[in-house]
Amino acid sequence: MDWSAEITAAQPRIAPYIRRTPVIEATVSGLASPVMLKLEQMQHTGSFKARGAFNTLLSQAVPAAGLGAASGGNHGAAVAWAGARLGHRARIFVPEMAGPAKIALIERLGADLSVVPGAYANALEAARAHEAETGAMQIHAYDAPATVAGQGTVMAEWEAQGLAADTVLIAVGGGGLIAGAMGWLAGRRKVVAVEPETSSALHAALAAGGPVDVEVSGIAANALGARRVGEICFGLAERHLGDSVLVTDAAIAEAQALIWRELRQLVEPAGAAALAALISGAYRPEPGERVAVLVCGGNVAPDPF
Amino acid sequence: MDWSAEITAAQPRIAPYIRRTPVIEATVSGLASPVMLKLEQMQHTGSFKARGAFNTLLSQAVPAAGLGAASGGNHGAAVAWAGARLGHRARIFVPEMAGPAKIALIERLGADLSVVPGAYANALEAARAHEAETGAMQIHAYDAPATVAGQGTVMAEWEAQGLAADTVLIAVGGGGLIAGAMGWLAGRRKVVAVEPETSSALHAALAAGGPVDVEVSGIAANALGARRVGEICFGLAERHLGDSVLVTDAAIAEAQALIWRELRQLVEPAGAAALAALISGAYRPEPGERVAVLVCGGNVAPDPF
Repeated sequence: MDWSAEITAAQPRIAPYIRRTPVIEATVSGLASPVMLKLEQMQHTGSFKARGAFNTLLSQAVPAAGLGAASGGNHGAAVAWAGARLGHRARIFVPEMAGPAKIALIERLGADLSVVPGAYANALEAARAHEAETGAMQIHAYDAPATVAGQGTVMAEWEAQGLAADTVLIAVGGGGLIAGAMGWLAGRRKVVAVEPETSSALHAALAAGGPVDVEVSGIAANALGARRVGEICFGLAERHLGDSVLVTDAAIAEAQALIWRELRQLVEPAGAAALAALISGAYRPEPGERVAVLVCGGNVAPDPF
Repeated sequence: MDWSAEITAAQPRIAPYIRRTPVIEATVSGLASPVMLKLEQMQHTGSFKARGAFNTLLSQAVPAAGLGAASGGNHGAAVAWAGARLGHRARIFVPEMAGPAKIALIERLGADLSVVPGAYANALEAARAHEAETGAMQIHAYDAPATVAGQGTVMAEWEAQGLAADTVLIAVGGGGLIAGAMGWLAGRRKVVAVEPETSSALHAALAAGGPVDVEVSGIAANALGARRVGEICFGLAERHLGDSVLVTDAAIAEAQALIWRELRQLVEPAGAAALAALISGAYRPEPGERVAVLVCGGNVAPDPF
């Protein structure tokens, strides 16, 4: 797959529907050097997921049966939003662990919603059954080329905004976002995968030599709790990943508080995970290494309003 | 006063100490056209006030007795922060209405704190008495040239970031921020003052032909509740203000919820007041008029952490 071409094609396709999210360079307590941040949680529906959803819907024929998606919450909200904007019916399958704030968000966006007992993988099974039954188009949350190419526009956009960093830290669930970043960068900058110790599908896949099932839990599980990392992500990681690090829930919670206290950004645990790797020392930059952190989601629970 | 020169001089002076805050262009429900936003609540200590504080401290000799300031909360936090960064002792006088979140913020920054019964004007009296007694340097929250020039750097910075707007909406308390904006723009763009109906010192001054005392109350009072608008602001408003509009507390609360729901920015009521003027129709742009909104403060109560 020529990811550079796919992502370059995705950019103008989705541009009318997505936000060019802001970037900032900021000093943060405990870090020796300023860090670059991209505030992708300001994207429509509160995460980067709208990019992949629009890219899928705008590059493929959508059947009359509409859309289906399984989601820990953020992808479902993005599919619901994109479906509504483009006039397609959407049914979203969410695991219970998505939590009331994300479930309410999806309902507010007007999608049909099925709450599935168990974890993300169970919701994915239900979505696949729905697809087989109805002919609805399935938008995979992370392991489909159009999804990955859409998410890759984050990094293309960031470079166009003048990103000055040697290294980019990105939180990983199923790996759609980091796959897009690796596809775009193709080794031009160091990409560091950050996963919770309790939901580390990519880390386990790298150790095992291929995607394997993992247990998922912890405070970021509804966004980063994929049972198995995507094949696309794994393939790109084998070629282009700079490092894979793990963070504790405590470090994620500390980073979440820090990003509020020092930057007045209220983000969900997954959105703070990449910063947590810096704060906790799970990733230690070399002297002079310029580091960037992608802030990927802001759908906190409980919703403050 | 040559405000353009003052603000141009302030920029490099304070640059090492302040953040270049991000900007975004966003569609928002209920508005016909996209709006430009500057997220100045991401400034150190959660509001634009750090700019004026650093400009004051870096352009004047600071006595051994240190600093004093009266503040509804945000200015006090900024003076405490700037004092600590530059090695000056600071005593901050806050009115009770500052509320526990802002009072805790100032304490965390290491300043000496006096909580004064009543409104902002009472805290200002106490700060003046402290100045007379001790020789501490008073940093006025809004009606001093160095404060206004520091706040003016927000607009200079925004223009350097490519601001494409005919009109800029700015919330007004004592008027330091909007004075800096008017001083910088000098009529080149339309500046619209937005005040709560319940705290409208500038609006009252324009009606009376000069600054007059007003009653202050409402959900934004701890940031926008100046009893009397600054003379500097009033003088600039007579020459350069495009419009003065009022918003209800209900409109402010609605804008505050909207900016969270659609942009995942959690801001204090004062930070949402300028957007409230658009949402509520208090300010109605002409067809084709490109509008920008300055988001000025993020110190919500209660603090989410």
